Amino acid sequence: FSSKLPETTVSIFSQMTALSNAHGAVNLSQGFPDFPADPELINLVTEYMHQGFNQYAPMPGIMELRQAIANKLEYLYRVQVNPETEITITSGGTQALFTAIGTVVHPGDDVIIFEPAYDSYKPSVEVFGGKVIPVRLQAPAFQIDWDEVENLISDKTRLIIINNPNNPTATVLKQEDLVALERLIANQNIYVLSDEVYEHIIYDGRVHQSVIQYPGLRDKSFLVASFGKLLHTTGWKLGYIIAPPLLTIEFRKIHQFNVFSSNTPMQYAVARYLGQQERYLNLSSFFEKKRDLLVIGLQETRFNILPSQGTYFLLVDYSNISDQDELSFAQYITKEHKVAMVPVSAFYSKAYNQQLLRICFAKKEETLVSAIQHLKEL
Amino acid sequence: FSSKLPETTVSIFSQMTALSNAHGAVNLSQGFPDFPADPELINLVTEYMHQGFNQYAPMPGIMELRQAIANKLEYLYRVQVNPETEITITSGGTQALFTAIGTVVHPGDDVIIFEPAYDSYKPSVEVFGGKVIPVRLQAPAFQIDWDEVENLISDKTRLIIINNPNNPTATVLKQEDLVALERLIANQNIYVLSDEVYEHIIYDGRVHQSVIQYPGLRDKSFLVASFGKLLHTTGWKLGYIIAPPLLTIEFRKIHQFNVFSSNTPMQYAVARYLGQQERYLNLSSFFEKKRDLLVIGLQETRFNILPSQGTYFLLVDYSNISDQDELSFAQYITKEHKVAMVPVSAFYSKAYNQQLLRICFAKKEETLVSAIQHLKEL
Ligand SMILES: CSCCC(=O)C(=O)O
Ligand SMILES: CSCCC(=O)C(=O)O
Repeated sequence: FSSKLPETTVSIFSQMTALSNAHGAVNLSQGFPDFPADPELINLVTEYMHQGFNQYAPMPGIMELRQAIANKLEYLYRVQVNPETEITITSGGTQALFTAIGTVVHPGDDVIIFEPAYDSYKPSVEVFGGKVIPVRLQAPAFQIDWDEVENLISDKTRLIIINNPNNPTATVLKQEDLVALERLIANQNIYVLSDEVYEHIIYDGRVHQSVIQYPGLRDKSFLVASFGKLLHTTGWKLGYIIAPPLLTIEFRKIHQFNVFSSNTPMQYAVARYLGQQERYLNLSSFFEKKRDLLVIGLQETRFNILPSQGTYFLLVDYSNISDQDELSFAQYITKEHKVAMVPVSAFYSKAYNQQLLRICFAKKEETLVSAIQHLKEL
Repeated sequence: FSSKLPETTVSIFSQMTALSNAHGAVNLSQGFPDFPADPELINLVTEYMHQGFNQYAPMPGIMELRQAIANKLEYLYRVQVNPETEITITSGGTQALFTAIGTVVHPGDDVIIFEPAYDSYKPSVEVFGGKVIPVRLQAPAFQIDWDEVENLISDKTRLIIINNPNNPTATVLKQEDLVALERLIANQNIYVLSDEVYEHIIYDGRVHQSVIQYPGLRDKSFLVASFGKLLHTTGWKLGYIIAPPLLTIEFRKIHQFNVFSSNTPMQYAVARYLGQQERYLNLSSFFEKKRDLLVIGLQETRFNILPSQGTYFLLVDYSNISDQDELSFAQYITKEHKVAMVPVSAFYSKAYNQQLLRICFAKKEETLVSAIQHLKEL
């Protein structure tokens, strides 16, 4: 059997969650909330199921939900998006990413990614015969040198993947970054895949910069978003993708044969729930409190804390504590100190150890307090 | 932009449903039930959502559901399947098909399919750079000539896709067919993708023959199944795939980066619901009554009825009524006689008109009665 992904193993998130469960650790590894979703939202799902909304949704998603998304874009970013031709509902952000990559990447194409990078980008590109060109970013700022990127561009470059706010670095792109990217791809046959699943989780008064706000990017970009991150329902597997009409047509061709459509009663429930626009506004302050609680707690440990500008992640440097490589140290802490975190080396295509671990703080206060207690032992 | 699927349009199912809705027709085109799912099942989803089962399921699916599937295979087919290493829960049958094709098919590979064929097979193969070799089957028996298939096999042949019971022909494969296929692929580097989403809908005392029961097939097959078809919940997008351990490992690598995992509260609900094994047994007789109602009604029309041995579809021949091609005639009946059906030509890669239409009878009695009323006008 000729494997498409000979080097791929079970993802680091599954690995660490399994190890965490096996050792009864506090699981701050895989990115998901441990607090409940809004009962009001759950009641809506129940209502639609009982009303009989249990059959195939339209392939691009129900119009009510696409309209709710268009309303948000207008309300938050002052951007007009056509729900008929530019928005497609997907079975989560990951499915949107995979399908968009499949839409654009042909065998032999190059795809530029920035590392540390979310773990699905590289194998997804490789499944479709593309080659990843990684740009390695340096802690603690993880800043992109756009001149370096320009030097990597060739005739084979077909796609650039950005992730903003960034998982795992918790950095956010600035206006200058998007302007530089816009200039870079002007008059080139290069597309952008912008993973913005944490768009509504951004701190200290920062304002999210979306590709949709930059005309030269919007014309050539796929924007991926996630209801799982917005509504604390990562297990409902609902997200969406925005792309200009011609790219949306091509995306939907593949989407239609990949999953055809996404969960019907949950689409209706989310559409009704998002009718109230303030849903989007509270998320940053909700998570900022959790971040601050974690930061204050970690100050009493021997970890060095890197700033978290967005996402529900935060990086810590453990060079004061141990010389072990990241994976070994993460496993050791899980087993011996009962806190699971993710080694940042897992986000690099070539193992690169910087003595950094990623902590997920989408957790109840008591969970964070208990983790901090354990980490103080180190 | 270089399209992966230059010829693909919106699927015939979406087209006919849209036309049906636009003309207030009785929609017997797209395959989905118009009657409710079991409230007991819906209540279980609600229960799990309120209990907080709203975050990522394990990537291969929750063990409770995989175990329920293994129990069924033991109970119905007397086959032992390891839920840990051989069963993966998917976001519907379509996603299982697409991912399995992506797992096996490399650019340049040939894939044998039998036409009429479910519409996703060919484009899914093409997205991954494979080439479809269609074997055209003839109405009314749509029998496979395995010697003809043998002649099509070459070094490039990597996969054979079967669909049993068959959508749209409503035929079922016999033991001889599976034995012939088993012999055909022996000692060859050829895999089988067996789409068995209608396995529990089979009529007149016939017994479903699954690839899982034939050792020489089981070792090299992906078996795709669907909870949407079993539980009347096509919009929940839940299915599964069974494959031997080595193929499952490769399947999961791609699955993990395609959708990662499937709907959590619905997985728990289905697992509990399927604890009662008789769920599987009633489906054939439930749909057989609908089939018989439709057949008796159609006998009073000028359509010729082809036998439906399984699935919730039935083909009719309209050569007594019109000379129009299938698509035109299907559109005409939808608009003028208010019944939507699917032209069978849509299931062939090269348009092939046999004056056949496909009728979905997964409908309430009153829906079928009303459709028959309209069809008598013809
Ligand atoms: C799909 S499992 C990974 C969840 C996540 O986004 C993360 O932990 O980074
Ligand atoms: C995924 S829409 C098509 C539904 C179906 O299986 C059919 O109508 O054949």
